[in-house]
Order: sequence, then structure tokens, then C-alpha cells
Amino acid sequence: MVQSTSERTGEFEIIANYFKDLTGQNRVVLGIGDDGAILDLLTNVDTQLVVATDSLVESVHFPQDASPYHIAQRALCVNLSDMAAMGANPRWFTLALTLPVEYAKPVWLKEFSAGLAEVAEEFHCSLIGGDTTCGPLTISITMLGEVTSGIALKRSGAKVGDSIYVTGHLADGGAGLAVVTHKNISKDISHSIRERLIHRFYRPQPKVSEGIDLTAVASSCIDISDGLIADIDHLCKSSGVSANVVTNKLPVLNDVTSGFPDDYLDWALYGGDDYQLCFTVPEENIDKLTRWIVDGRLVATRIGKIISCGELGPEVLLDDSPVNNSQKGFDHFGY
Amino acid sequence: MVQSTSERTGEFEIIANYFKDLTGQNRVVLGIGDDGAILDLLTNVDTQLVVATDSLVESVHFPQDASPYHIAQRALCVNLSDMAAMGANPRWFTLALTLPVEYAKPVWLKEFSAGLAEVAEEFHCSLIGGDTTCGPLTISITMLGEVTSGIALKRSGAKVGDSIYVTGHLADGGAGLAVVTHKNISKDISHSIRERLIHRFYRPQPKVSEGIDLTAVASSCIDISDGLIADIDHLCKSSGVSANVVTNKLPVLNDVTSGFPDDYLDWALYGGDDYQLCFTVPEENIDKLTRWIVDGRLVATRIGKIISCGELGPEVLLDDSPVNNSQKGFDHFGY
Repeated sequence: MVQSTSERTGEFEIIANYFKDLTGQNRVVLGIGDDGAILDLLTNVDTQLVVATDSLVESVHFPQDASPYHIAQRALCVNLSDMAAMGANPRWFTLALTLPVEYAKPVWLKEFSAGLAEVAEEFHCSLIGGDTTCGPLTISITMLGEVTSGIALKRSGAKVGDSIYVTGHLADGGAGLAVVTHKNISKDISHSIRERLIHRFYRPQPKVSEGIDLTAVASSCIDISDGLIADIDHLCKSSGVSANVVTNKLPVLNDVTSGFPDDYLDWALYGGDDYQLCFTVPEENIDKLTRWIVDGRLVATRIGKIISCGELGPEVLLDDSPVNNSQKGFDHFGY
Repeated sequence: MVQSTSERTGEFEIIANYFKDLTGQNRVVLGIGDDGAILDLLTNVDTQLVVATDSLVESVHFPQDASPYHIAQRALCVNLSDMAAMGANPRWFTLALTLPVEYAKPVWLKEFSAGLAEVAEEFHCSLIGGDTTCGPLTISITMLGEVTSGIALKRSGAKVGDSIYVTGHLADGGAGLAVVTHKNISKDISHSIRERLIHRFYRPQPKVSEGIDLTAVASSCIDISDGLIADIDHLCKSSGVSANVVTNKLPVLNDVTSGFPDDYLDWALYGGDDYQLCFTVPEENIDKLTRWIVDGRLVATRIGKIISCGELGPEVLLDDSPVNNSQKGFDHFGY
């Protein structure tokens, strides 16, 4: 049944009660509670705006038994990861929250708001507005960030000869998903590893400061949300190049390789949800990057090289062989 | 079942195929196809950013038999109306589209994209990014606009003695909803009136140029989405004032008063979905506004006055009597 949008009246109270404290400073002239937010822009430095939108849907991006606290954190982290991939400073975000009647209760909203607040505070970004509507649980966040003009990282800058790196470790996303969905999990997996992976799934660490650093050395960058190979494929297509990835260079933590010996490599390559940055570095910047890695400023591993395209155009090779297309990633609406 | 987010691979193709042409200029340095969009800001004039988010959910905000073309138009118009209410120039928007597997077909996406493109072109705003996910149909748009610093219209500026105006005509939203949901419609309603109201429902006319004009004369402004009385109530609460609305001044078109004699007044007051602007004007600007109305630059009607609060604080009076609270609007999650 179609409702008149007068049902949106309650939105005003929900936002005022549960989300108003999330509006930090960050030059927010007018925050939640009007038809739009008003933001002051920096006028003393030459800045560009970076904008990204990501949605999370219940039972698609998180299981039905996920806590509102966890859902909120994951939603915001996924969006912050887009800012990281662009080398931008996250500043402001809006929240479009569609939630079923049975969730629109103080206990759910308080928990959701607490999860959101914790991540927003850590990354110094302010909730500036949004919309709550009644329907199946969907969280859509639009994040706004700032970057010095001209230095934002793009997918399109990779050149033949550049080295390919990833930050942190791969396969945590896949292992985390397996744990939260209780799938094929050996009983030998210790409680502490489970806890680490559950935390890792709901609270991916967006590589925001790493992204900002990388604007000084990287020729291109993408965050790993669809899976390493799928995302390198995006990067190659945008840049008009191919890539060769070396399997035995992929950084995977010991608890994942030993706990999931049959799956970890698949997850590292195709699993998605890692929210690490994959970036390319031209020869002349390798020394600088290596110093950062040695100094502990950045955790990153060299996993391959950008090469020129063959007859088929941009493609990703794995240990010098083309990746089977069916492995690259799953069709979005294929399930 | 939780899917790995590798299912988002298809998003890339959907956006590239159906929405890429919607990226206009408007200083879009990098549009759809990266982790975020990059936008150049105006540096020669002192500008603030205005941001608003609105979601539409199937069966809540539009009926299940609505065409994708209509849904897209309505979604964008509702968001443009928020820009209008702030007196801002709409520039850019992101689209978070959650759609069921059965809709993710070329025919649906083409129609949706065509509806979006038509409105985007009319209002000179560019699609800069978004996300498509699989789930129950939900359209969430975040609109970014620009306004000269300090002149944006807010809900909070109304002062005692200001006159209250609305643009255009009321009750079209309520009558449109009745027609699209086939509810209580007399057989006497002519085909042409039905057509006008269906169009009006799916394609509300966001009062963008009116909002920009009003920055010169209005002390406060809100768009009528929840219903006239509910929205004046929001405005009064934000401004710390009360309002007295005169019923027989409400502008309603003849085809609605004669076609829906039992309902039109309720719709004008409480029906919502009108997407007109309700604004307040201080005495010293009335002459200027009246000239605009007489010259045909603006269609607007004076419907009441801002008065000081009584003991109960901000409230809306109708013909000098308090509005029954239960009439004001419906509780958001009350259905």
C-alpha cells in the first residue's frame, strides 16, 4: 500500500533523537533538521570535493542476525574505504536508512547510532543529514571528502612497468564472511581467531591515512571490495593496461592460512570485502615507498607488475597465465 | 543468504551501460566509474555547499505498478525540491539503487535511466556516482547544490509578524496519490484530470528557480512534503514561533475542489506530497514579493501569519484554533 509521505513526519523525531549528536564541526553551518545541510568550503586552499555512495542491504551484505551496532560500523567503514581509495579526507556523510517497523525502536536505533558515532569520531567525519523511511533494512551512505586539487588517486593512472602493491593482508574479508555466516568452519578455529575475524568483517579498517600518504607516490589506486583480481581488473580497464600478479607474494595472515588451508587463496584472490588498498607505484617512487614500509609508516606488499596489453586488451594474469573469466568475480544479480 | 560483495562487480557494468551519459559537465573532473567522483568547486565566488538525501521505497512512496520511468522522475524531483527549499542551485547527485533481480534487466534500467536523464537535464544537474545493489526496490538520492554564502533559506528564520505564503497550488499531491492508487475515485473524474494528476504525482515540479528568487525576500522556507500543517509545524519549531493559517485562503485548483469535494481540504492541509514551497516574508519585503506575483514571476498565495507562541510553545493554529495533534501528520512507522 502506498502511504502518503506524511509518514515521514516521524523521521524528524528519529533523526533529532538518535543522530543529532553525530553532527560534529567540520564547517557544518547547518546540520540535521532542515531540508538540507549547509557546509562551508575551504577557501584558503585549492580543494576538490570527492563524493562516494555505498549501500548495504540486509541478507545481502550482512546476515540477518547482525547487531545494529555492527551494521552501522560496517556501513560507514565501507564508505570511508572509498575515500581512502581516492586519497581524500573524509569530512561529511548523509545516511539514508530504510528500516522495518519492528526495528524502529529505541533499542535498535540507539545501538545503530552508537556504532555510527564510534566510527565517525575515529575518522573525524560528521553526519550532516539523511532520511529514514519504512521498508526492508537498507543503509545507504553518501560520503563527502576533500582533497588538494589535482592529487586525488584514480583507477586510471597505472602505467606499464609500475609495481602493484596491496596494503595490509588479504583473505580476512572472506574468512570473516565465513565466520559470520557459520559456513564450512572447522571446529579447530580458536575463539580468539573467530573474534578477530568477526570484528574484521564488521569493522574493516578503512585505509584513510594510507590513502592520503599514497597521493605522493602512487600512480593509481582502488580499494579491494569486489576481490583482488576483480578490482585489479577494474584498475587495468580504467588505465588501459594489463597486470601480472604473483600468487606466492599475496600477504595473508598465518591464522587464516592455517585455519582455512583450503579456502584462503581463493578468498585472497576473489573473496572481496578486504577493504585494503591496491595501488600502483612507478619505478621512481619505489625507494620512497620502500622506506615507508621499512620504517613501519605503511604496511604494504609488492604483489605484481603492470604490463602492456596483449591482443585481448586489458587483462589480469596470475603467475603469467590469464585468469579464467568465470573466476574473476560473480555476476551482481546472479543469485 | 549473505553474498560476498563480489556480487557488486555487475554494478560496474550497470552504471557504465545505463547511467554514464547522465554525467553532465558542472565541473565534474571525474564522474562515474571510480571509487568516488571528483568535483571542482567555484573559487571565484564565496559559495556554500548544500546537501540533501531522500529515499523512495516501493509500495511506501509509490505503488508497485509504477513504471521505472515515473519512479526515477519522482525520486529526482523529490530531492530537487529540497534544494528548492534551501534556495540552492542543484549541481550533482548520487544514486543508490537497490533493485530486485527481476528488475535488473535492460528494459527496466533503460526506462529508469531515461526518466532520470529527462529531469536531470531540465534542472542542469549531473549524476556523479552511486551504487547498485540487489534487494527490495529502494531509490536513495543525495543531491549536492551550491548557494552564495550566507543566503541559503532555512526553516529557522521566521519572525512574529511575517506573512506565510505557499507557491502554486495545494492538494494536487493528495489527489494524485488517490488517482495512482485508484482509491475512492469517482467515475466522474475526467480522463484529462486523471492524466494531469498522475503526471503531477510522478513529476512534481520542484520550485528550484522560485527558491533561488526567494533568497532575496523570504525569512524562512520549507518544502511541503509531509503536508502543509506538518511542515509549517516543523518551520515553527525551528523558528520558535507559532503560525495562524487561514483555511479559505488555501490555493487549490478547481479540478481538485470540484472533483474531490469531500477530500480536497484534508489533502491541502495534511495530505503531503505537494512539493510546493511554504515560506515566510517580513513586512518590509511584501511589496517586492507582491510585484513579483502581479508580474507573473512567481505564483504564490498569502495563507496566514506568524504569531508569537502561547503557553504551549510553537504550534500551528487553523483559523485561530489549535490544530488537533492527531490531524497534523501520521506517525512515520505507524502503519
